Amino acid sequence: MAREIAEQPAALQMTLDVLRELRAELRALVRGTERVVFFARGSSDSAATYGRYLVEITAGLPSAMGAPSVATLYRSHQDLVGTLVVLCSQSGRTEEISEVAEWARRCGARTLAVTNEAGSPLTRAVDLALVTAAGRERAVPATKSHTTCLLALAEVGAALSPTGDHLVRELAQVPDEAARLLAIGMDPAAHAAAVIAGARALAVTGRGFTYATALELALKVEETSLLPCLGLSQADFQHGPQAVLDLATPLVVVSAAAGPTVTGLHSVAESAVRRGSPLVVVGGTPAMQEIADWTLPGAALSEAAAPIVGIIPGQLFAEALARDLGRDPDAPPGLDKVTHTA
Amino acid sequence: MAREIAEQPAALQMTLDVLRELRAELRALVRGTERVVFFARGSSDSAATYGRYLVEITAGLPSAMGAPSVATLYRSHQDLVGTLVVLCSQSGRTEEISEVAEWARRCGARTLAVTNEAGSPLTRAVDLALVTAAGRERAVPATKSHTTCLLALAEVGAALSPTGDHLVRELAQVPDEAARLLAIGMDPAAHAAAVIAGARALAVTGRGFTYATALELALKVEETSLLPCLGLSQADFQHGPQAVLDLATPLVVVSAAAGPTVTGLHSVAESAVRRGSPLVVVGGTPAMQEIADWTLPGAALSEAAAPIVGIIPGQLFAEALARDLGRDPDAPPGLDKVTHTA
Repeated sequence: MAREIAEQPAALQMTLDVLRELRAELRALVRGTERVVFFARGSSDSAATYGRYLVEITAGLPSAMGAPSVATLYRSHQDLVGTLVVLCSQSGRTEEISEVAEWARRCGARTLAVTNEAGSPLTRAVDLALVTAAGRERAVPATKSHTTCLLALAEVGAALSPTGDHLVRELAQVPDEAARLLAIGMDPAAHAAAVIAGARALAVTGRGFTYATALELALKVEETSLLPCLGLSQADFQHGPQAVLDLATPLVVVSAAAGPTVTGLHSVAESAVRRGSPLVVVGGTPAMQEIADWTLPGAALSEAAAPIVGIIPGQLFAEALARDLGRDPDAPPGLDKVTHTA
Repeated sequence: MAREIAEQPAALQMTLDVLRELRAELRALVRGTERVVFFARGSSDSAATYGRYLVEITAGLPSAMGAPSVATLYRSHQDLVGTLVVLCSQSGRTEEISEVAEWARRCGARTLAVTNEAGSPLTRAVDLALVTAAGRERAVPATKSHTTCLLALAEVGAALSPTGDHLVRELAQVPDEAARLLAIGMDPAAHAAAVIAGARALAVTGRGFTYATALELALKVEETSLLPCLGLSQADFQHGPQAVLDLATPLVVVSAAAGPTVTGLHSVAESAVRRGSPLVVVGGTPAMQEIADWTLPGAALSEAAAPIVGIIPGQLFAEALARDLGRDPDAPPGLDKVTHTA
């Protein structure tokens, strides 16, 4: 996992080059799209959540996270003409997601896959596949296949957006920003892990664009440290679940440095302090960082591009926490690289 | 909370009578709807999740859980002509949800509220309000305002469905089924709570229709027992988070008695047993019940109607668990009946 985390700048650069070649084909496919639905599981689902916010906010199109069982188990027939269905599966071998792709085509949707496996079953079930160039990933927890998936989804958001060229230009900076976040090293991650030591469970929250990063960070900690993690949007968290915060239940707040979400994220950080809950802030404002027990760096990119690499400090943190707890982060007991669900 | 749980058969009957009067107006509003988006927080959000599955599966229309921040914080402008936007807020006083209603109207959507408060701000922000008749709810954790909200959402699903009359006829049995589930008494709930005693955290899972019940059960336990609870769909849970199951992290599986979801739910129940995790099954098949440490009753209604009252055994369980842990379930520390988020 540590090696694959370190490979991300190169994987992102290679993926950027591959995606550039596919840009014209992607734009042709998505022309006239009226709405977008994303289907994914696990780490691909955190990535798809980023795609969903990007499509709604940057492209101004209605977008949704699809419920696979509606297609695979209940076999609902829907009219999906005008809808772009985006299917994310790093392995391309999650049968459920391929089955959804076939269902979406029968319902009249245009279908697009984001996967890290050329020639995988998913690539054959869709109109166009964006195949990321992360290379083979051996550790069970996805790292480089996740950030390259986010990068591909940023290209999709840009293709759907009238102002997408601005975002596309910023994507060229992503590999360097990944390298900068890695160059900070393991020290901050190790300190943050020490703040969490002894916790019964962890809560991780974000809002808007950073909600996707919070979901992925919660999943990464669960997979590597076997610690139960609530991954929730700040507003959902404050509508009930925040009751669980205490000395043994730390909070991690993932925040942009500025923008419309920081007021709410600051308020949830304050409520953790009031409850005596250890607090780690990832990114965020100086005011948030001031009340935190420890901080991790945020990505120095626009709010819309930051989530592509914003998880990297969280990956290092999950790795450090797993080692602290004596776990092998590369091969969590009972998990496989490809999960078979219907 | 205990008193309000017991009031549900009467609250459901009164709500059924109120909704009958509104049926023609509801059908007129939803005529020609092409897709549906639900917005809600907290316990209303669990209810909306049921509404979403019902619309997709029974009415065959694309449906989504909306992200409020897209409207309230990022102010995305979207074309929502042909879309029915359903806003659920038991108090009708969550500003965020009223603000989304106004945004949805500006975007061209038809808007429908489900609330328990006549004359609340939300009722004035929408085209039509379905006001449930649960009466005043004093305990912070929603119980009767939740099940009556589910009932109203079943009316919405039926109004959107060509075969909705069948579901409408079944709704007449809902108050009696609530009474039957209550008549079983506190013993099963107390035994299930004993299975959970000493847990560091809890995982609750369901699939399709029962996913909504699982989300609500997780929230109810968090609010009353201050125990961290993962509420996840069975497929999402098996794609990573199930790694956290162990002796101190029990699993609750909420399942229909039959239908397309039971195979997957049986498999996740088996994986809990393999990991040495205590297992409680709510509803489910005889084979699932056989491997469980304890079972709670399921609702004896069709899969599409069962979730309306399927949470009642879970409410009793949350109440019993809170008392076991020495908590006051009526007034969890730091939570208010109306949560203010932007």
